[in-house]
Amino acid sequence: MKKWPITTIVLVAIILVLAGALIGTLLYVRNQPPPTRGVTPLITVAAQEPDSATWGLNFPNEYSTYLQTTSNNTRTAYGGSEPYSKLEADPRLVQLFAGYSFSKDYNEERGHGNSLTDVRATQRVNDKTPGTCYSCKSSDNPRLWSALGMVEFDKTPFATLGERIINPIGCANCHEANTMQLIVTNPALEASLEAQGKDWRTFTRQEMRTVVCGNCHVEYYFQGEGKLLVFPWAGGTRIEDIAAYYEGIKFSDWTHPNSNAPMIKIQHPEFEMFTASSTHFAAGVACADCHMPYTRDSAAKYSTHNVRSPLLNASVACGACHPDVEYATARVAAIQAQVRTTMDAAEEALVAAIQAIHTSAALPSADVAHLEEARRLHREAQLRWDFVAAENSLGFHNPEEALRILAAATDLARQAQVAALQAAAPASAPTP
Amino acid sequence: MKKWPITTIVLVAIILVLAGALIGTLLYVRNQPPPTRGVTPLITVAAQEPDSATWGLNFPNEYSTYLQTTSNNTRTAYGGSEPYSKLEADPRLVQLFAGYSFSKDYNEERGHGNSLTDVRATQRVNDKTPGTCYSCKSSDNPRLWSALGMVEFDKTPFATLGERIINPIGCANCHEANTMQLIVTNPALEASLEAQGKDWRTFTRQEMRTVVCGNCHVEYYFQGEGKLLVFPWAGGTRIEDIAAYYEGIKFSDWTHPNSNAPMIKIQHPEFEMFTASSTHFAAGVACADCHMPYTRDSAAKYSTHNVRSPLLNASVACGACHPDVEYATARVAAIQAQVRTTMDAAEEALVAAIQAIHTSAALPSADVAHLEEARRLHREAQLRWDFVAAENSLGFHNPEEALRILAAATDLARQAQVAALQAAAPASAPTP
Repeated sequence: MKKWPITTIVLVAIILVLAGALIGTLLYVRNQPPPTRGVTPLITVAAQEPDSATWGLNFPNEYSTYLQTTSNNTRTAYGGSEPYSKLEADPRLVQLFAGYSFSKDYNEERGHGNSLTDVRATQRVNDKTPGTCYSCKSSDNPRLWSALGMVEFDKTPFATLGERIINPIGCANCHEANTMQLIVTNPALEASLEAQGKDWRTFTRQEMRTVVCGNCHVEYYFQGEGKLLVFPWAGGTRIEDIAAYYEGIKFSDWTHPNSNAPMIKIQHPEFEMFTASSTHFAAGVACADCHMPYTRDSAAKYSTHNVRSPLLNASVACGACHPDVEYATARVAAIQAQVRTTMDAAEEALVAAIQAIHTSAALPSADVAHLEEARRLHREAQLRWDFVAAENSLGFHNPEEALRILAAATDLARQAQVAALQAAAPASAPTP
Repeated sequence: MKKWPITTIVLVAIILVLAGALIGTLLYVRNQPPPTRGVTPLITVAAQEPDSATWGLNFPNEYSTYLQTTSNNTRTAYGGSEPYSKLEADPRLVQLFAGYSFSKDYNEERGHGNSLTDVRATQRVNDKTPGTCYSCKSSDNPRLWSALGMVEFDKTPFATLGERIINPIGCANCHEANTMQLIVTNPALEASLEAQGKDWRTFTRQEMRTVVCGNCHVEYYFQGEGKLLVFPWAGGTRIEDIAAYYEGIKFSDWTHPNSNAPMIKIQHPEFEMFTASSTHFAAGVACADCHMPYTRDSAAKYSTHNVRSPLLNASVACGACHPDVEYATARVAAIQAQVRTTMDAAEEALVAAIQAIHTSAALPSADVAHLEEARRLHREAQLRWDFVAAENSLGFHNPEEALRILAAATDLARQAQVAALQAAAPASAPTP
């Protein structure tokens, strides 16, 4: 056997070791999981996983702040998370919602973590309530919508569907598992956006930080016998568009027993109000910027998931853009006081309209055409007022729009009162 | 004669020369004019000098931009300096001001340099017009107020006083000669501030950059036989305070021929509207920041005295604080459109109220108490609407406040209509 020089042997050995090291490194790198945004997930989360605690293993800061929405129970000047009775705070609401469940039970809502407890406790739910009422209450929904389809989900009785629902609003309502991308999960929102020619998958992340809130914080109604969840956005998302939509399909939630008008109850239209050219939206601010501001906790920086009134967290929520936080919160207080005053006047006008219609309609000689006009005006006035009253910000999400709408509501309510008086003439006119 | 040593002579000579130099320097320094803010005045201006051209020798940039107010004739979306007829632009005003001079001649106002030309041209001036109408029209006023006193100034007939008035609004209306300090020159403003316990001499310069505009851009009335100029601020400067003040002294400008209500005409209350907790005022912005922004012209930096709509100069006027000028002007456009819509509704309601009162009052059986209530409501509604309508900003000086007031105006106007219908019952009711 020919002897190799010692130097050749050493050289070959070095080359072999280096080659082995290179191959080993390449194989290791190739088998690493895809890069994340600086977070190494501990576990893989199943698609549409309903249990937020599982997601919480990978995202402890987001999860632990989310849990705070359950215990957060603080009232602000006009809102917050304390479930006080709106009916006791403002008894005019009992007259405005007479004949409808909201005149019996209407509390300020609590945080996301209480959604399931609270929807099951409300007196507005009864034997006839459809599954649709669970649409915005549970992180079980994305999986159920995939399994059943929205049509089946909605027409299942509330009690029956409830057997399959165990988690309150959670991670799966807005996030894709593992990638944590923000996604539209409510089929009604997806359908409404599609009808507007919009594909949410093309939206920027900052846009999605507003759009995912539209999964729930919108005006909606239950369509047809199947009580299908539909957003009334076909003609646009301004209150005038929504009113025209409901008028076009002759929809009503209930008939007011005193005015006999076919009424609409508006639900929390935060998305529509904020995106109607509000100053913050126009400046590129998203819902999450104020309600889930980026928070520093020692070395960690994350978007807090203790979603609540920014007034309870103003130094962080407002302070990121407004160095003078005191100035910013004073502006909120001033604006909300102006909106409250204007809303009070709208409610007084609505109560007067209802009474005038009631009185005139009792007269055998009352003019039918004028009475019908008065009822139409009552409906139009009250749904405009409710668009501001049911919206959770007391106008601050869009101050000028809220005041514009309240001015119109008051005008229409007083016109209803005028029409009712005209209906009573010429026989004998009422003096409400 | 004793001979001094040569060294002593030299030493004494040096001491004498130094002493002489010191004395000369001190005398020179002592006789220099007081220091100025980097400007060496060419001439000394007499106290209350009415001719702005004289001041202009010392301040050529301020003066030459001031002269531009004479020729500036540009219309904005809702205002500007083109003297178009407001009555032709909005024929409802003819009905609202029926029986009063503003229903005959009501044009958009032009710039400061045209004040004298325009007050002499308006059809609202006649043989009975008092000198008070010159209060805000001339830089001759400070001297005349000092010479005559305001009581004498005001009660002198307009034509007679006019012989002593030759200059339009100018430097002397806001500045002290030579020091150029901002000063209150209108005795009515000084009296109003004193009544509020305020001494303008203690105000900061930034505060004065708003207060001097209050020399003229305010609501006022002519008190008593002597037609004394008075600001109705004794109870405060909000519209509710002003309305209560006029009601308290039973003042009216004219009686509306169709409703028979005792009416108030509101004049350009820019100062009151802006300082009523507007967002800009609360943030420390002064009138001059937007209407007379600091301007660079080669090496010179000065506050432009071409006082006009900031929309005609947005890159400088808005851009100093809002880097995204397009965003800022779009906000102005959106807000003014909202205010215009709400103002239209208020005007429709006022016209309906006037017609309803007119119709009811013609009925022999009309109820007097209800008619009186309808007239009171017409007055209260219209003066609130006019507080926004006569204010030169279409609500932008204080958007939420303007919309709040318009909502109240519409409410009151419709209540006037209701009261008029109630007055007609039970005999025979009108159908306006």
